[in-house]
Amino acid sequence: MQEIQIGLLGFGTIGTGVAKLLMNNSALIEEKLGTRLVLKRIADLDITTDRGISLPAGMLTTNVDEVLTDPEIAIVIELIGGYDPAKRFVLRAIEHGKHIVTANKALLAVHGEEIYAAAARQGVEVLFEAAVGGGIPVLSAIKGNMAANNFATVFGILNGTCNYILTRMTQEGADFGAVLKNAQELGYAEADPTFDIEGVDTAHKLSLLLSLCFGTRVDFDHIHTEGISAISAIDVNFARDFGYKIKLLAIGKRDGDRIEARVHPTMIPVNYPLADVDGVFNAIRLSGDFVGPVMFYGRGAGMDPTASAIVGDLMDIARNILAGIGRRTAPLGYLEGRVKTLGIKPMGEIVSKYCLRFSTLDKPGVLAKIAGSLGRHGISIESMIQKGRSAGETVPIVIMTHEAQEKDVRAALAEIDDLDFIREKSNLIRIEDNLE
Amino acid sequence: MQEIQIGLLGFGTIGTGVAKLLMNNSALIEEKLGTRLVLKRIADLDITTDRGISLPAGMLTTNVDEVLTDPEIAIVIELIGGYDPAKRFVLRAIEHGKHIVTANKALLAVHGEEIYAAAARQGVEVLFEAAVGGGIPVLSAIKGNMAANNFATVFGILNGTCNYILTRMTQEGADFGAVLKNAQELGYAEADPTFDIEGVDTAHKLSLLLSLCFGTRVDFDHIHTEGISAISAIDVNFARDFGYKIKLLAIGKRDGDRIEARVHPTMIPVNYPLADVDGVFNAIRLSGDFVGPVMFYGRGAGMDPTASAIVGDLMDIARNILAGIGRRTAPLGYLEGRVKTLGIKPMGEIVSKYCLRFSTLDKPGVLAKIAGSLGRHGISIESMIQKGRSAGETVPIVIMTHEAQEKDVRAALAEIDDLDFIREKSNLIRIEDNLE
Repeated sequence: MQEIQIGLLGFGTIGTGVAKLLMNNSALIEEKLGTRLVLKRIADLDITTDRGISLPAGMLTTNVDEVLTDPEIAIVIELIGGYDPAKRFVLRAIEHGKHIVTANKALLAVHGEEIYAAAARQGVEVLFEAAVGGGIPVLSAIKGNMAANNFATVFGILNGTCNYILTRMTQEGADFGAVLKNAQELGYAEADPTFDIEGVDTAHKLSLLLSLCFGTRVDFDHIHTEGISAISAIDVNFARDFGYKIKLLAIGKRDGDRIEARVHPTMIPVNYPLADVDGVFNAIRLSGDFVGPVMFYGRGAGMDPTASAIVGDLMDIARNILAGIGRRTAPLGYLEGRVKTLGIKPMGEIVSKYCLRFSTLDKPGVLAKIAGSLGRHGISIESMIQKGRSAGETVPIVIMTHEAQEKDVRAALAEIDDLDFIREKSNLIRIEDNLE
Repeated sequence: MQEIQIGLLGFGTIGTGVAKLLMNNSALIEEKLGTRLVLKRIADLDITTDRGISLPAGMLTTNVDEVLTDPEIAIVIELIGGYDPAKRFVLRAIEHGKHIVTANKALLAVHGEEIYAAAARQGVEVLFEAAVGGGIPVLSAIKGNMAANNFATVFGILNGTCNYILTRMTQEGADFGAVLKNAQELGYAEADPTFDIEGVDTAHKLSLLLSLCFGTRVDFDHIHTEGISAISAIDVNFARDFGYKIKLLAIGKRDGDRIEARVHPTMIPVNYPLADVDGVFNAIRLSGDFVGPVMFYGRGAGMDPTASAIVGDLMDIARNILAGIGRRTAPLGYLEGRVKTLGIKPMGEIVSKYCLRFSTLDKPGVLAKIAGSLGRHGISIESMIQKGRSAGETVPIVIMTHEAQEKDVRAALAEIDDLDFIREKSNLIRIEDNLE
């Protein structure tokens, strides 16, 4: 039976994993497809570094056109990352009738629509399971076996670096800066960790989940994105006292013709399955109208898990090629023309529970004034902790609210921050204790 | 675009869920497929009971041939359950060129090979996502995006009735019999719960997981199957003291050309994600050579989740029909002729940690004799608890072992049970604390 030829753009860690998987497991793949997937050519600017695997002579090239325009190559894997030149190369590959497999969430979150439209014109597939949750096959499950569901919510722990840092802060009571520094030394955080710790990577992934779950375009700039750099040991410890863990959560909710789309540190109850997702692991929890709540858990990054997702996509496309058909499923699972544009609800309108931390002078009447301000804005208090007492000194007061609208909470905090006994800007962490 | 006509065999709870889903979410399905999935005819012996949904006149029939031989019907859903007449009907539908979607794990675990062979001859699909884990899309993930992995292990909490009973025993310290009775009153256990509580249902599901993960036929009768009816409150409480929960676990492991295939109550550490799978929820944890450990969690049964899996399968087949192709994937993910027959390792040869409970007379020297017997059989002790002291009375001694071979443990227990201070047959629960 015909071999299926594959081209690869970008020969870094993930690309090396893909090459290794295609070689190591070629017999298994043939047992399932009845043919071989052959990596024909790899384009990278660096063709001299030893990646630790031996490739046939001539497989590596610096000339991207040897991948993009080779008529024998049926599928192009894009692992360059970033917006440019990845976007140009992907569009050129599509023009030449290649199916696309990519792990590039940034590219799809920002330029997905243009790429999907080009792929529709050419009748080729664009698959990107590796872009969200590494090896966890959540996107193909949403587009595949769970496709009959209207989804109400999607929650994700999607960034291994953030989750590793928060896990260590929780386990050690350590502060953010110290753990980040150590994580960088250990290779769990990049030298410039901004994209990870400020939540941008998580927001890219959320954007893709939202599109698949809700059948909508997502204006990436409208996703509210907060990272974890402002989380302190004191927050982590108070959370624990209340029975919660702090996780950087991607949150998507459908509310009629609008969606919530936000990434921020979130307190979740310790006895929830998502709270046990520690270290570099990722998890995605969704709720569909028929399937109910479903959770997927696994390694969210790394050479091997990401290669698993990419080769899974290759095999999916290979089955089409072997069956003699081109495109079988649109990139977002919804047919072109059926993808909606649901607006993103402004943060002021969201309803959540909140954990509020005030830094106040320890003197009588302080709590009454804070509670009074919250009450005037319609915010009711579920519980309160003031740890330690030292009259005349600064102490933290932590208040857990019932559900309230964010704009009311913001207004109350602004009013409270003007009170004379408040020593620092008050701090807010949202709580999710209803993951349905 | 052409509508796709579907026939349904068996109009019980799940069938009603499928009919409801196809009606409620028809617009969503059309947004994804570009066509409608139309339930044309339902065959059931009972066509008078009100299922709470309104169907067009004439859709219900007692004549199964109106489903099996209707040339307009492309896909037949089998929800009769059991071996016969389900098997005859499925084979007849395949002969007539129908694709099959079923939730019948018993049928596939025992007669799968014959059905898959018939489907291969006719070039039709046999999909059965609903047969394992209800709505959890684990089978399509194994056959789909994770297909490039050699799997090493698969663990599952696959029976909601057992998990509900064990969860309540753990939470309430209650005994098996009392919780079962209450579960029956609440509808969480059948009037005759044998298939569930004796592990047969779990073993059926394990059989399917083994076939998909390891590409093998499974001789169902060789799966070691123990249920939960022998688990007592005392076991649950000791487990908790050692930091474990007891779950009815389906265990599959690949060991060269053989597999382990067993279903039994198992102690797992409380801080493992599988330990948090409580009540009627199911979970499956697998480990692939590239993807690493992955876990799937969700509702393992019930009208709506099961309908989600069934309609997901329908949509998968519909995409083939719309693309003008017949069969795209073999039922087990491996091509015919590539499915192996891996032998099942006898239980005596498995290696595990064990929790052993002895009922002994409380007198000096007892522990030394037990430990001596274990030592002579090469079994080393990790920890021991003797709760309470009452000289001359019967007390339980609980011992956790390091890894040992089961035949050695059995031999030691036989020897110990012959000692004069042993009051009851000694009890053994296997421990899994390495789910990789």
